[in-house]
Amino acid sequence: MIIELLMIGNEILIGKTQDTNSNWMAKRITKYGHQVKRITTIGDDLETISSTFKKILQRKPDIIITSGGIGPTFDDMTLEGIAKGLGRELILNEKAYNSIKKTYERAYHKGLLKLEGMTKEREKMAHLPQNSTPLPNTVGTAPGVKIIERDTTVIILPGVPAEMKSIFRNIIIPILKEEQGKFMEKGFTFMGIGESQIAPYISKLEEKYPQLWIKTHPRIGLAVQVEVSITAFNIENDEQLVAKVLNEIREIVVSLNGKIKEREFNSM
Amino acid sequence: MIIELLMIGNEILIGKTQDTNSNWMAKRITKYGHQVKRITTIGDDLETISSTFKKILQRKPDIIITSGGIGPTFDDMTLEGIAKGLGRELILNEKAYNSIKKTYERAYHKGLLKLEGMTKEREKMAHLPQNSTPLPNTVGTAPGVKIIERDTTVIILPGVPAEMKSIFRNIIIPILKEEQGKFMEKGFTFMGIGESQIAPYISKLEEKYPQLWIKTHPRIGLAVQVEVSITAFNIENDEQLVAKVLNEIREIVVSLNGKIKEREFNSM
Repeated sequence: MIIELLMIGNEILIGKTQDTNSNWMAKRITKYGHQVKRITTIGDDLETISSTFKKILQRKPDIIITSGGIGPTFDDMTLEGIAKGLGRELILNEKAYNSIKKTYERAYHKGLLKLEGMTKEREKMAHLPQNSTPLPNTVGTAPGVKIIERDTTVIILPGVPAEMKSIFRNIIIPILKEEQGKFMEKGFTFMGIGESQIAPYISKLEEKYPQLWIKTHPRIGLAVQVEVSITAFNIENDEQLVAKVLNEIREIVVSLNGKIKEREFNSM
Repeated sequence: MIIELLMIGNEILIGKTQDTNSNWMAKRITKYGHQVKRITTIGDDLETISSTFKKILQRKPDIIITSGGIGPTFDDMTLEGIAKGLGRELILNEKAYNSIKKTYERAYHKGLLKLEGMTKEREKMAHLPQNSTPLPNTVGTAPGVKIIERDTTVIILPGVPAEMKSIFRNIIIPILKEEQGKFMEKGFTFMGIGESQIAPYISKLEEKYPQLWIKTHPRIGLAVQVEVSITAFNIENDEQLVAKVLNEIREIVVSLNGKIKEREFNSM
């Protein structure tokens, strides 16, 4: 499956918050053999959210996952922006309303909050685009949202990492598993010859094995240590193939008078 | 100035590398009073790079900063993609060629590399879009690139953080300083009342002070600790104004029976 991530939050754009959500999600999506094609980060601005979301939809990914901007405050406008981008109305979702109400009641009775019951701002989180399914948020208040638009599944998640992760685990991982592909990445490191010296050999191997993604990457400084890694998605007998090609590259490194440093690692 | 960041690298999309470059840049851009409007992360794919770059250009930001994909290997195709997006040819830049050659000679004579002189792959890094200015890379080999396209300045940086930072400091910071604006952010934290309870008051303050960006954010769990922060860009007397509005919010918190926890912090 092809997946696009849309991260929404001014705090990321001003550099106050390091976005770790997209990396956390990308790791898991890759692990189950799917592909993150693009990550877009924008601010809490209605026009920007709706137009950006529309453009992502036009690229027809299988899944769009958004994170951020679904809380109670005035600057949380992801739901409104996505509704606009989809051309759907925002309507009160009863299931979402009841779950939000319950969460606030619990917090009130635990003495965490002084205000019981629903306010305009709390109600706002229960206004979802037409034909949405709310996704239970067991960690915070704002529920996630699932929307089907033609062949694309849209999943709207909170920006708070613990809340995002909880809904991702409960809802998205099962979807990823259902159409699970295979993914592996293995590599080794060498010294004494540079990336650019081995590059023509790697190019030839890439032509020979178009199903593999072979990459070199300087680990420490300029050629002090170079990492080679091979990534395989959904290949029959991929373990044997990756092992075989890694061996070919090790032989090339040695023939160029390079020195193998770390013989093998699993990089994911 | 309005700035867009374009991060290029498959390793980010597969979740292997946490992109910290965009956060590092965003902090500095914000500090000098400029605005990061969007961060786009894409893979090492020629078509994607050129079409995405074209779309960013169409939004006419003052500066586009890219990071990643300018090394010697076959999968580094940022320069080719941007040349295509600009409709310019890739041509050998003599200044870039000489600086790359010198770097490899130095590394050879230090015993770091076994291969002296230029190879096809090393030469590749010196092929820049027509009318480019190479930007010296004192940490690695691939030079950065500066291109002027109508009213937009395009700066192409390496993805290796140390190399990116070095060129950013030498080239971009002076540009940011030249048209420097003011930016400040201050806040405090409170307990006992939730984000949604204070939200209507904050909305009113936002209407009253449209030049400020006032934000609340749960710090620990649900209402256990909430952060309020005020961001000001380029306001006359902004320090006094921010201090005054923070005081108004403190009074609101207390009147709602909330408790001030941390009286003041500078959040940037």
